[in-house]
Amino acid sequence: MEDFKTIEVKRSIFEDNDADAQRLREELKAEKTFLLNLMSSPGAGKTTTLKRTIEALKGEMKIGVMEADIDSDVDARAISGTGVRAIQIHTGGMCHLDADMTRQGIREFGTEDLDFVVLENVGNLVCPAEFDTGSTKNAMILSVPEGDDKPLKYPLMFSICDVVLINKCDTLNVFDDFSKEAVKERILKLNPKAEVIFASAKTGEGFEKWIQWIRKEIREYQVL
Amino acid sequence: MEDFKTIEVKRSIFEDNDADAQRLREELKAEKTFLLNLMSSPGAGKTTTLKRTIEALKGEMKIGVMEADIDSDVDARAISGTGVRAIQIHTGGMCHLDADMTRQGIREFGTEDLDFVVLENVGNLVCPAEFDTGSTKNAMILSVPEGDDKPLKYPLMFSICDVVLINKCDTLNVFDDFSKEAVKERILKLNPKAEVIFASAKTGEGFEKWIQWIRKEIREYQVL
Repeated sequence: MEDFKTIEVKRSIFEDNDADAQRLREELKAEKTFLLNLMSSPGAGKTTTLKRTIEALKGEMKIGVMEADIDSDVDARAISGTGVRAIQIHTGGMCHLDADMTRQGIREFGTEDLDFVVLENVGNLVCPAEFDTGSTKNAMILSVPEGDDKPLKYPLMFSICDVVLINKCDTLNVFDDFSKEAVKERILKLNPKAEVIFASAKTGEGFEKWIQWIRKEIREYQVL
Repeated sequence: MEDFKTIEVKRSIFEDNDADAQRLREELKAEKTFLLNLMSSPGAGKTTTLKRTIEALKGEMKIGVMEADIDSDVDARAISGTGVRAIQIHTGGMCHLDADMTRQGIREFGTEDLDFVVLENVGNLVCPAEFDTGSTKNAMILSVPEGDDKPLKYPLMFSICDVVLINKCDTLNVFDDFSKEAVKERILKLNPKAEVIFASAKTGEGFEKWIQWIRKEIREYQVL
């Protein structure tokens, strides 16, 4: 028997996703649950990042992970091994989550006792950027092998994120045409307030900055 | 002045994309133009693969490239440097191309005199898999850094492709948890007829198999 549940969510019946997302944000605020919407291309390292994040923070707060996927439960299986609560959300072929789909997951999961919930969105740089999930903050991971031109090609995604983790920095010597300066400049041009963090979830290099960002955001959220 | 045109395509007005795709396929067949729909995640190496493919084949056939992107013209700019005809298609935020959007590109481009046209689809493993573009064949690129579990997570994409190029094989020593055997087995389980080719567009290793696949497919298409 698996130690995580799998639920199938249905497309929202609400016309106005933005208003619905705002309602969900207020519901989460009332229970002091910080929801981080984590987005990236397929294979940028969301699950590896999550595993290391859980390892660093599970002693200080109650964490839950909602894994959204079109199919499969590879990621929920990986996360359930870390000892935190996990749920697998199947989107039924949909390429993104909207606020009501997120709420269906949240309600089934039960987040009242959790401080920090990560929603691992579908691996896709296009559609998830168009739908506010009701999350407290948006994070994205761009991995070095994908190239430093991605902000030029997927500008909306980079515009809506509060933090961009540049992952797999341990491979910068292999992908030597990737310029840290160029990618940071392109991101900040689209989104001057974005926090840009260079790290490797595999080796742990630079990872403390990411952990500090999360810690600070949650602290401010719970106090305000 | 740029030596490529940029066009903005509009979402199809046709209800039945599958029937429309079939019509486009017949139109292309009548002019003996082979259309390859090339799909992948962002950053898997579509443009680098294309540049090496053009280099290998431009002496034997007339080639054109249609670059679809939500925004930017980074790729059309790169391709226009290779000396073949290129056009940039902007999807107006859409995450995929359907058959009518492809036709709008084809008509604007003018493909009657071309033997081989590559449609570089939007970087996305989800939505492009759901819309038949009217292409002669579907190809996808999976890059080693993305991981060998991608067929489990994006099964539809792997199911509809005639050929899967596993790219960036020069980094297999860095991403040493990537199993060539596992990825091939997972792809063939979804799609027993798929051709799976291991290569690196950067170094050229294994690339001849990809070129041979294209050459054979075009030869058969033009004879039949």
